[in-house]
Amino acid sequence: MTTPLVEAIPVAALAPSLGDNTGDVDRLRRALPPELAAMVPFARLAKVGERFRAAGFAGAAVVNRLGHVAELVDFLPASPAQLPAMALDLGTTHLEATLLDLPSGRRLAHATRPNSQAEHGADILSRIHFAGKGEGLALLQQAVVADINALAAELAAQAGIAPEAIRALSIAGNTTMVHLVLGLNPYHLCREPYIPLVNAPDPCHGADLGLAIHPAAPVWVLPSIGSYFGGDLLAGIVASNLDREETTSMLIDVGTNAEVVVGNREWLIACAGAAGPALEGGVARMGMRAGPGAIDQVTVDPETRAIRYRTIGHEKPQGLCGSGIIDLVAGLYLARMIDIRGKFRPAAVGDRLVAGADGLALVVAPAEEAADGKPVVLSQVDLDALMRSKAAMYSILTTLMHQVGMPFSALHKICVAGAFGRHIAPRQAIVLGMLPDLPIETYQAIGNSSLAGAELVLTDGDARQRARELVRKITYVELNVNQEFMLRFSGSRFIPHTDHHLFPSVPFYSEE
Amino acid sequence: MTTPLVEAIPVAALAPSLGDNTGDVDRLRRALPPELAAMVPFARLAKVGERFRAAGFAGAAVVNRLGHVAELVDFLPASPAQLPAMALDLGTTHLEATLLDLPSGRRLAHATRPNSQAEHGADILSRIHFAGKGEGLALLQQAVVADINALAAELAAQAGIAPEAIRALSIAGNTTMVHLVLGLNPYHLCREPYIPLVNAPDPCHGADLGLAIHPAAPVWVLPSIGSYFGGDLLAGIVASNLDREETTSMLIDVGTNAEVVVGNREWLIACAGAAGPALEGGVARMGMRAGPGAIDQVTVDPETRAIRYRTIGHEKPQGLCGSGIIDLVAGLYLARMIDIRGKFRPAAVGDRLVAGADGLALVVAPAEEAADGKPVVLSQVDLDALMRSKAAMYSILTTLMHQVGMPFSALHKICVAGAFGRHIAPRQAIVLGMLPDLPIETYQAIGNSSLAGAELVLTDGDARQRARELVRKITYVELNVNQEFMLRFSGSRFIPHTDHHLFPSVPFYSEE
Repeated sequence: MTTPLVEAIPVAALAPSLGDNTGDVDRLRRALPPELAAMVPFARLAKVGERFRAAGFAGAAVVNRLGHVAELVDFLPASPAQLPAMALDLGTTHLEATLLDLPSGRRLAHATRPNSQAEHGADILSRIHFAGKGEGLALLQQAVVADINALAAELAAQAGIAPEAIRALSIAGNTTMVHLVLGLNPYHLCREPYIPLVNAPDPCHGADLGLAIHPAAPVWVLPSIGSYFGGDLLAGIVASNLDREETTSMLIDVGTNAEVVVGNREWLIACAGAAGPALEGGVARMGMRAGPGAIDQVTVDPETRAIRYRTIGHEKPQGLCGSGIIDLVAGLYLARMIDIRGKFRPAAVGDRLVAGADGLALVVAPAEEAADGKPVVLSQVDLDALMRSKAAMYSILTTLMHQVGMPFSALHKICVAGAFGRHIAPRQAIVLGMLPDLPIETYQAIGNSSLAGAELVLTDGDARQRARELVRKITYVELNVNQEFMLRFSGSRFIPHTDHHLFPSVPFYSEE
Repeated sequence: MTTPLVEAIPVAALAPSLGDNTGDVDRLRRALPPELAAMVPFARLAKVGERFRAAGFAGAAVVNRLGHVAELVDFLPASPAQLPAMALDLGTTHLEATLLDLPSGRRLAHATRPNSQAEHGADILSRIHFAGKGEGLALLQQAVVADINALAAELAAQAGIAPEAIRALSIAGNTTMVHLVLGLNPYHLCREPYIPLVNAPDPCHGADLGLAIHPAAPVWVLPSIGSYFGGDLLAGIVASNLDREETTSMLIDVGTNAEVVVGNREWLIACAGAAGPALEGGVARMGMRAGPGAIDQVTVDPETRAIRYRTIGHEKPQGLCGSGIIDLVAGLYLARMIDIRGKFRPAAVGDRLVAGADGLALVVAPAEEAADGKPVVLSQVDLDALMRSKAAMYSILTTLMHQVGMPFSALHKICVAGAFGRHIAPRQAIVLGMLPDLPIETYQAIGNSSLAGAELVLTDGDARQRARELVRKITYVELNVNQEFMLRFSGSRFIPHTDHHLFPSVPFYSEE
């Protein structure tokens, strides 16, 4: 049986009399099942008592289930038709949220918006620095609280309710985003030895954060494991059931960092590739986000070397998104237009090669085909960045498997989360040597698993319990200081790899 | 072992490292004994983490023990020399408070002040009515919060600390006073069936009430049993150990109401004489509070009918305090200057009898002896009021014993609390038929047991546990609607009683 984070419990109490002069709130508590007859937060005491009496001592008690304690926060004259709760994926660049009806978990609404903290710093590091200056921390908190309130208003409007009717909020975010929304100083997150102020904050209330949802709504934050391993990835583990299965699986989430977990119900080991050659911003940094006009699929004819592309929405091309770049570079390699180091082979590229501001570049879509009259190109600088990214990714995966003492072939499945998982073609990533050479069916795109995990903790007490236990259960490997990682990184800076036997399915072209 | 409400727990944690990247707050929790490694309230989260780090991960954690949960609210660089906590007897007319050092319970300071809610209403009923008008409730709360803050400042000054150094507050008050200090509407307390909004509020924090003590200081309120049976009397039970003894005892507390409990460790039954012929304000209403210039002891020579008195501080007399009135009236009865109905016998009183604004009066101290040149007198109106008070008191006691099915002689001891207990001579009260005719050693004056109980819950977890359990353990008899009480009241309006066999030690003078 699942227990939602907030419940409306039907109550019918005997009215007070001279023979039964229990206080109103005590009477209500007495009418509840013992495990729910818990604390009434001071800020709610008068309201709970007055509403219980006004309802004639019958209706529905609103109870927040906070693990080892329950909170009695409101009383309604009747069981409500809906008990709306908001799940939030709190990303560095974007926020994505859904509104669920508890206890069913039925989706009532969905919305996204950019993180407006971006005006104070594009990435995590710059925001941590901004937080340290004057009112910086307060400004960052206010910005993201305003974003959450805007999302809540949008979700509420879609569902035809008032934002104050939202009775719970779950937040899955990276460790820095969680610090900022809670107004906690993130100073030590980016300084060795990279220690959060808190990994597992206790639930607070909407009113504590200045949120426009119900003031007594519990705010349940998915815990972090460390500075570079946040509640967003922990949510992904919960959503993908890694911690419940007998067989060993892997979860890869490429958001602001590349975060990887491997394990099963007995053990879990994780790492994140934050520093060193970063995948920060993922492969999307070199191109554009997947959206109308983005080239998302590319084929390169290995014989004629002709390049064909598809854009999202079949609009004129404006740029390359992550999956398009990976398709393209894999195709260029198989057509031998780039070498194993990821450098253009001018003779093979031919007149598609032009000299631009960034040095040599390959024209993917000529100016006359493109949306704004400027050709869509892939420069050598872009290529070099992709090579570093793919090398970092594969090095992270191999370092982690080496820690575990298992070959890739022991993995039952590899869940690839987020936009990266949704858009990338695993086969092309294998050709590049970015992902291990395993049967394609091993790979599963699981979408926004951070949001899925945030939804689960709203509806399911077991999921909340698992999330709390995962903090103790996961072994975290710090790659920032890992010598082995740096060695593996060097070996991974070739297509598919210096040791091409690791990729038996990928053609290997020794240098002519 | 006693567990104080707040503890400073010595902590020495390993400093964080790349190999141990637990968050600061999580590290602190891990270093505490499991039963104390509990919630950090959101308002304290940043401070706890930052102070733990600033102290080099060693010092003392400040933990509030709130029954089934513990709260981690602060971190100090070293175990403090003192952990001051304030115990408050929150009376309708006066507040009395002490400052204790935890865990020893050593008294650091003591202070009293009038309840400045009095400007909005002298008694409970008028304050309940005032609370229902406009901003009345807020004004009453502000008034008593200002009083508590003034007391805290005075206690702190005596102890040489800042008020913010007070780390806990316990409050024992009647049900109305507790509602008003918590800002809860007392409307239903004085309306049948007399139901509190809450009997047993969960602890809140100093900051919730706008108190000038430490913002995270737990405010532990002694629970009530009903509208006319408050935490002050419950504190008295805890302080007098009624609920722990095998033998049956009685507790009498005459404050704003006359409240009586009888029982032992198996059962407890209680009632309060609030409505009907009220003891409201106790016997003190007819005279003055016990203080310098108050006549507190009187003897009447049964032969010569000469009246001798003593004043507090040996100053010139200004009035009669409660014990003085009871001494006087018992003496007047034994000297046959009043009859069994409590009426002056003019022939016996002689020229001490004068006609005043209120009718006949007896001169206790003539004008030339008195402090302000006005004679101190006892009027027939005063006498009638005392007769009603004593009748009400005895009726309450007999009604209660009848409910229990025990004679007075089964009582092992009778604890008499408060100023009433401190100043009254039980023998004289027996003569009047106010208290049962038992050996004098049965009576024990226990002082301000409300304050003593408030002190105990600060220092002793068992006392807190007992206080919570008493709410369920005590059977409360509502006298307002008790027919038997009214019948007994009529029989008690004679000295000592219509049935004089109930008072074998008191001379009985049948009407001439």
